[in-house]
Amino acid sequence: MSKNEEKNIQDIINHLKVSGFVYQNSEIYGGLINTWDYGPLSTNMMTAIKKYWVREFISREGNYQIDSKIIMNPKIWKASGHIDNFADYLIENKVNQKRYRADHIVKDLFPEINVEKATFEELENIIKEKVKQYDNEKCEWTSIRPFNLMFKTQMGAIDSTAAQTYLRPETAQGIFVNFKNVSRTTRAKLPFGIGQIGKSFRNEITPRDFIFRTREFEQMELEFFCEPEDSEKFYYYWIDKCKKFVELLGLKNSNIRIRPHEKEELSHYSLGTSDIEYLFPFGWGELLGIANRGNYDLSQHMKYSQESLEYLKDDGSKIIPFVIEPSIGLDRLLLALLIDAYEVEKLEKDDERIVLKTDYNISPYQLAVFPLVKKLEEPAKNIYDKLLKTTDIRVIYDKTGSIGKRYRRQDAIGTPFAITVDFQTLEDQTVTIRNRDTMEQERISVDEVEKYLEKFVK
Amino acid sequence: MSKNEEKNIQDIINHLKVSGFVYQNSEIYGGLINTWDYGPLSTNMMTAIKKYWVREFISREGNYQIDSKIIMNPKIWKASGHIDNFADYLIENKVNQKRYRADHIVKDLFPEINVEKATFEELENIIKEKVKQYDNEKCEWTSIRPFNLMFKTQMGAIDSTAAQTYLRPETAQGIFVNFKNVSRTTRAKLPFGIGQIGKSFRNEITPRDFIFRTREFEQMELEFFCEPEDSEKFYYYWIDKCKKFVELLGLKNSNIRIRPHEKEELSHYSLGTSDIEYLFPFGWGELLGIANRGNYDLSQHMKYSQESLEYLKDDGSKIIPFVIEPSIGLDRLLLALLIDAYEVEKLEKDDERIVLKTDYNISPYQLAVFPLVKKLEEPAKNIYDKLLKTTDIRVIYDKTGSIGKRYRRQDAIGTPFAITVDFQTLEDQTVTIRNRDTMEQERISVDEVEKYLEKFVK
Repeated sequence: MSKNEEKNIQDIINHLKVSGFVYQNSEIYGGLINTWDYGPLSTNMMTAIKKYWVREFISREGNYQIDSKIIMNPKIWKASGHIDNFADYLIENKVNQKRYRADHIVKDLFPEINVEKATFEELENIIKEKVKQYDNEKCEWTSIRPFNLMFKTQMGAIDSTAAQTYLRPETAQGIFVNFKNVSRTTRAKLPFGIGQIGKSFRNEITPRDFIFRTREFEQMELEFFCEPEDSEKFYYYWIDKCKKFVELLGLKNSNIRIRPHEKEELSHYSLGTSDIEYLFPFGWGELLGIANRGNYDLSQHMKYSQESLEYLKDDGSKIIPFVIEPSIGLDRLLLALLIDAYEVEKLEKDDERIVLKTDYNISPYQLAVFPLVKKLEEPAKNIYDKLLKTTDIRVIYDKTGSIGKRYRRQDAIGTPFAITVDFQTLEDQTVTIRNRDTMEQERISVDEVEKYLEKFVK
Repeated sequence: MSKNEEKNIQDIINHLKVSGFVYQNSEIYGGLINTWDYGPLSTNMMTAIKKYWVREFISREGNYQIDSKIIMNPKIWKASGHIDNFADYLIENKVNQKRYRADHIVKDLFPEINVEKATFEELENIIKEKVKQYDNEKCEWTSIRPFNLMFKTQMGAIDSTAAQTYLRPETAQGIFVNFKNVSRTTRAKLPFGIGQIGKSFRNEITPRDFIFRTREFEQMELEFFCEPEDSEKFYYYWIDKCKKFVELLGLKNSNIRIRPHEKEELSHYSLGTSDIEYLFPFGWGELLGIANRGNYDLSQHMKYSQESLEYLKDDGSKIIPFVIEPSIGLDRLLLALLIDAYEVEKLEKDDERIVLKTDYNISPYQLAVFPLVKKLEEPAKNIYDKLLKTTDIRVIYDKTGSIGKRYRRQDAIGTPFAITVDFQTLEDQTVTIRNRDTMEQERISVDEVEKYLEKFVK
């Protein structure tokens, strides 16, 4: 098992591209800067991850899931503060007209400075005074200016009156503005959570680190509403739950840490925020965040919409609930899971293999079926077909190349088990089943395959 | 069982709003014209429907699923024809500056005319000559002009050079431009399919009929690639498969019809298109479509990208595959399923109930748990908790009001079974299980509940 610091991110990215996890978006048209599409392998994983998120954050907790729109009334983004404050600090090098995020420049060149705590004046001073050369170019810097990260669009057919609106930069606000609707129709009592899964959009100045920071990404957010005095208890509950969730999916504990935000980093309304960070090969990075947002969001929407979002307690009193928000970015969770699983193992005779040691439950395919030789294709295909049509196991068929080659190919895409149909199969209906991680084989009956794999279901 | 023609769509819409299936989007801010959010009940259904789509269109067929982006390189929409041709015919009444879709006016006033076949000159002539009064206003019409239905946005931080781009109006093109990537990485042999689920956006002039036609909607599309000579066979295969799919979800056969497009309706490249139509209370409407698109899409992308999208056959020859496209709109499928399930049943003593007879597998909740009286809340909650934490049954707990009221409430949201914990439960660990459709009850052991429900799993 190799340490993440020793893993080469470029090797991993190349592997993910070559093997079909990630494609360049619009590749045949020269792409679209730092935009990626997901191939069948990632898509299978993401479907499985979402299933577990729904189970752990919604169903098993008795919470509620909704599906609000990407395009909403623009007043929502005024109330949430996104129109006024959701901006990055943009700075331009006048020499070549290239634009950068000021905090990224400082982070790159002065890793000892905590950019999260720096004000924009501080960033500007550091850059103007100390950065005379950057990105292979002499520098003459403009002042910093804020650049709003929301994508704009127009809705409606009548150009003169069409509504200027935005693509949501987070799914959370779709939940807050529906708080009353969900409370009314479910008659839920505090505490209860409302979650949703969906795409969000941020017009990042410099998307980077592969699928870690992209302009179009998928979120899995829960807003857990509770009485103010319970908010600290639930804040720690959801931190713990999030940690267990990423462990359930298979992330190694040694590559995860919980980092509570320091006071200076906190949003002005936050009563506490913790990130679960993952040790990416490019350093510790935020994997997901849990925030105690107090009653800030509901209060803002009450103020701007003039509608009451208060909760009526059994004793007749009214409160504005506090909210704990565990917010997960699916794309970067996928990246962490793939990095975590990636191993280059030395084998005998100077041979090596790339193997993705993904957990059985989220592996792109869970079982491969091989015929030993061409003659055995029909019985192997029959076994494959039967598993495909009668079980929910994600199964793949491969008949090309030697068995050894096929093992390597499945290792490289994370398939935890492979069964081979050989001549003995015709006699006694047994197959060999080979374990990706141990590379050991045993012989089991075809009829036992499903049961054999059931042991690994979480 | 009442006929759809007798169902009142406004009653159904009211029911769906009141009970928490659908909310007005951005409601506390006065909404956003004809935009809807999905509450927990619809969201649970949609998650289940998507699961079955993946099973029936991807996994069990050995097809591949991808996840491409909503925002792609704008050249894609030039090649696909959407920039030049994806427009509705807009006509304006100069008297009050209101704009309409020309085909909608003609369809409303002259139902005998097949607007699908009419050219825009014909529509303009009919309206200018015959429509002197419309929408409670005297009319003086402008000429028809095309209005492009794609939402525009800008990507990138540098305003002067930021890419003007679009929100995808269909998921299909994300598949075509990845055809080569998927072929290369899966080494799939024809025939094979590539599908995806995701949001699409069309800036409809007049969104209408509730969630039937909305500007932001979710698609489940499969592009099934095959050799040209097999395309007709697979066209019929996928028509049949789609029909079986909506039947699997529970749509009544009597409310479905297959309508092959007439020659005049076909897109110029289509070799055949059939809609599966559903008998909505507002008339037959397209539920989903299956099209034989020939090699039009791949050919267009070859031409515009200058990249080969040919497929290399085993005999060394190259072909451009044909494609069969079964395309399903999730929102209108949900609407059809809800309308289909909606019944107002007369009961004894002039009483009546609203009941949603949704199929077990897609019901928002599958099982309700009630304590008979307050004293029994603890054992009932324990049973609920155990089912919640150890099974995948979608289970809901309800302790409010009389048992009869609770039955009605679960009937109204489509919960097919309800178990009641009574005093006998404490003695022998049995509960009554009540069937939503027959309203009959039987007594079974608590331990048998999971097995009892398993019979209904498809």
